[in-house]
Amino acid sequence: MNEVTARRARGGGGSARRAERTAVSLETARFITRNIPNFEILNEEALQIIEWNAETVLEEIGVNFLENPAALQRWRDAGADVRGERVHIPRGLARKLCATAPSSFTQHARNPARNVEIGGRSLVLAPVYGPPFVRDHEGGRRYATMEDFRNFVKLGYMSKWLHHSGGTVCEPTDVPVNKRHLDMLHAHMTLSDKPFMGSVTEPSRAEDSVEMAKLLFGAEFVDQNTVMTSLVNINSPLTFDATMMGALEVYAAANQAAIVSPFIVGGAMAPVTVAGTLTQVLAEVLAGVAYSQLIRPGAPVIFGAFVTSIDMNSGAPTFGTPEAAHITYGAGQLARRLGLPYRSGGSFCGSKLPDAQAAYETANSLNVALMSGVNFMLHACGWLEGGLVSSYEKFVMDADQLGTLHHLAQGVAVDENGQGMEAIREVGPGGHYLGCAHTQANFKSAFWRSDLFDYKPFETWEEEGARDTEVLAAARVKKLLADYQRPALDEAVAESLSAYVARKKEAAPDAFI
Amino acid sequence: MNEVTARRARGGGGSARRAERTAVSLETARFITRNIPNFEILNEEALQIIEWNAETVLEEIGVNFLENPAALQRWRDAGADVRGERVHIPRGLARKLCATAPSSFTQHARNPARNVEIGGRSLVLAPVYGPPFVRDHEGGRRYATMEDFRNFVKLGYMSKWLHHSGGTVCEPTDVPVNKRHLDMLHAHMTLSDKPFMGSVTEPSRAEDSVEMAKLLFGAEFVDQNTVMTSLVNINSPLTFDATMMGALEVYAAANQAAIVSPFIVGGAMAPVTVAGTLTQVLAEVLAGVAYSQLIRPGAPVIFGAFVTSIDMNSGAPTFGTPEAAHITYGAGQLARRLGLPYRSGGSFCGSKLPDAQAAYETANSLNVALMSGVNFMLHACGWLEGGLVSSYEKFVMDADQLGTLHHLAQGVAVDENGQGMEAIREVGPGGHYLGCAHTQANFKSAFWRSDLFDYKPFETWEEEGARDTEVLAAARVKKLLADYQRPALDEAVAESLSAYVARKKEAAPDAFI
Repeated sequence: MNEVTARRARGGGGSARRAERTAVSLETARFITRNIPNFEILNEEALQIIEWNAETVLEEIGVNFLENPAALQRWRDAGADVRGERVHIPRGLARKLCATAPSSFTQHARNPARNVEIGGRSLVLAPVYGPPFVRDHEGGRRYATMEDFRNFVKLGYMSKWLHHSGGTVCEPTDVPVNKRHLDMLHAHMTLSDKPFMGSVTEPSRAEDSVEMAKLLFGAEFVDQNTVMTSLVNINSPLTFDATMMGALEVYAAANQAAIVSPFIVGGAMAPVTVAGTLTQVLAEVLAGVAYSQLIRPGAPVIFGAFVTSIDMNSGAPTFGTPEAAHITYGAGQLARRLGLPYRSGGSFCGSKLPDAQAAYETANSLNVALMSGVNFMLHACGWLEGGLVSSYEKFVMDADQLGTLHHLAQGVAVDENGQGMEAIREVGPGGHYLGCAHTQANFKSAFWRSDLFDYKPFETWEEEGARDTEVLAAARVKKLLADYQRPALDEAVAESLSAYVARKKEAAPDAFI
Repeated sequence: MNEVTARRARGGGGSARRAERTAVSLETARFITRNIPNFEILNEEALQIIEWNAETVLEEIGVNFLENPAALQRWRDAGADVRGERVHIPRGLARKLCATAPSSFTQHARNPARNVEIGGRSLVLAPVYGPPFVRDHEGGRRYATMEDFRNFVKLGYMSKWLHHSGGTVCEPTDVPVNKRHLDMLHAHMTLSDKPFMGSVTEPSRAEDSVEMAKLLFGAEFVDQNTVMTSLVNINSPLTFDATMMGALEVYAAANQAAIVSPFIVGGAMAPVTVAGTLTQVLAEVLAGVAYSQLIRPGAPVIFGAFVTSIDMNSGAPTFGTPEAAHITYGAGQLARRLGLPYRSGGSFCGSKLPDAQAAYETANSLNVALMSGVNFMLHACGWLEGGLVSSYEKFVMDADQLGTLHHLAQGVAVDENGQGMEAIREVGPGGHYLGCAHTQANFKSAFWRSDLFDYKPFETWEEEGARDTEVLAAARVKKLLADYQRPALDEAVAESLSAYVARKKEAAPDAFI
């Protein structure tokens, strides 16, 4: 962001400056930079087998690019063997094409302090994406509305450990399908100053996203910088449909980032075994990322892997399971060997309520994501019921837990202060450390503490109503929404965004399918 | 276990054989053997600094062995510099003494199929230890009784993923303090056939434990084999009290295993920093394990680390935190470098209820324990409210989650079946895998599934009462206790145990302090 746009984006008039001063007190943690190793579950031999097999899949079986003659022509020109809509990619070609994709990139936010680096040892956290329902403690489960959407954007903006505003934090079902992307983008751009995602449900909506980003950041800035990261799902197995590829084409051409992400329920959209799933995931990502580089070499792109296991009794997807962990660890290794940023993990759970099941499954998933080297974690908070529901309470519960990942990633300090030998000498056998100088000097930052959980004595807790985590979270949701203050935005920019949305809405009849 | 005792322990008469046949259908998973790497958070330099500092602590500051002149004499004879009750251990001496402790040992169960290997790449799971209260969904929180104790032993026996019956699964407060160890041991020995722990609250109670084990296993067998693993806490910082050391002396002399375990609330009993705490933990374990080898070289002993963080606002211990994770990972590395089995981890949480907080904290702790190379995990299920409460519902919730650790530890198969290339070829782009041959051949074992969680469609779940995890768990507790059948035990052995308990109880007046 250059000086001019930075100043413009951060607000002009006196009231904006006052709002900014208030908003500055809102603390957002910097994206995580890992100071701990990644967990490497596959050995070299296993990695080579999977990589060899993925190339075999691309060459021998091939991938489908549906209803997309231009894509087929691009593949022909690149040297692939195209038969009908099936693209057979010779061994080595996809990997070679992937080499122009950056290993790391900056996604800019309108508040430069909220810029994120995606790749390398970073971990950027973004909220849940896609649920058609919401749930809260008082109202129960219901279809999501635009008001819910705005509330979740506000909660994301207020969440200290969340670096990114996300995309479809819930599906606003009360807005026509062909217009809701406009309201969603408008909400992210005006109610938060964190980075956000663009629309992918039609190529024209991706174009709207780029146009609105130009209004917010300035056209020149958007041409030269990445200001959106958007989610392009692969239709597993091995199928690239015209809608998602159309969005990818728009974003890659505009130098905006895309997550190329197989969406896999294991045993349904991929083989029932971990190594088999990793093979297919790698083949799909190789093909998708290679295609992005055919559109524009150097376009930023992320190796995605959304993988759940399945309950073979009922067919229900299951979350926080060991097999999902194996795949998440393995895919991280494959992404690093490809030199691409890695997207996986999330606050995944199958539970209908933000209860113990939800928390076990979610904690399993969050810990695996940190340890597997994920660079961009979508769904990092708020996911409930297999992704059908955005939960208000779980949003703040998960967002609180994301603090543990920040502290875990710091690793262990072994400098003189970390060693604490003076404290051991001062206290000695049988003493206690609470009052010693070393403890006094370090206690404020020594231990992560939850801003949500109950740490009170039993009697106090009981007197205060014996509240469980969901009830505590419901109170926190109310407080955060009550305390919310919109971050300052230049009035001219705000008006241009509103005018764009109004104009586009007027230009087409409502459509609800 | 030799042929004779094996046959004897497994039961004699016809009714016992019938009971055995029924009991055999009860599945208990074999202890975990890791096929995945350990997570190594500390680099070589950090490890060397901590190891050097720990030796400095032992030599320069020393450790206290209180009210134990015989221990002081043993240390003098071994070459330590003893001043008053303070033992200064010259650099290198403790580590040298530790070298005679085995890196792995078998703890025998009266059912040989339930024997466990403790050390190497194994992970043995045992239930919660020590809470004076219990909680269940219907009855709430109350003082624990002997009936509760027996119930928890039964639940442990019925839990597929639990390898060990544990020790003080709750504190039976309705039995006199000086006699309750007899009832507790009797319960473990007769209501379960899994391995168990001995009493440590008085040296004489450790002696009772050994005597009762001899009745159960045969005296000769106990002389030659390890049949108990008991918990010897160090009074951190750097203090070894006469009670715990008395128990250690009894067990080491009898070739029975002891966990030598600092009990640390960070910032209170150890420095507020991770590296400082690891230094003190290592110093304490070095001194304690060395002392066990002074009693009997080769006695089996475990490197223990019970560590929690603290909420510096309230002084409450906190669980499932990043700092506890750092310490658990680091202590695992230190234990492996010492060549000792490692005890840490557990279903730790501070929550008052088996709710989302409890589950987040617990899942964090369980995952860390697996990845840090723990060989013996006490408190693996049932822990609630900072260890004040044994929770019936949380016991079965955690015990179910322990299945995820088993499956995670299996690692990733990359044999031909694991690679699944035939499945990818068979299904092809746009197909689905549910019906393919590879899926059919593998689906039964491909994915771990919970025996407790809700995987039902939303509508079914709602019709069935919209139950949360605690309610599902309460139903499971009831069913397990209703289905419980005592494992067969030779009548003569059972009578000798009952007679021993009766005789010892009669020999002393009740004491409740």
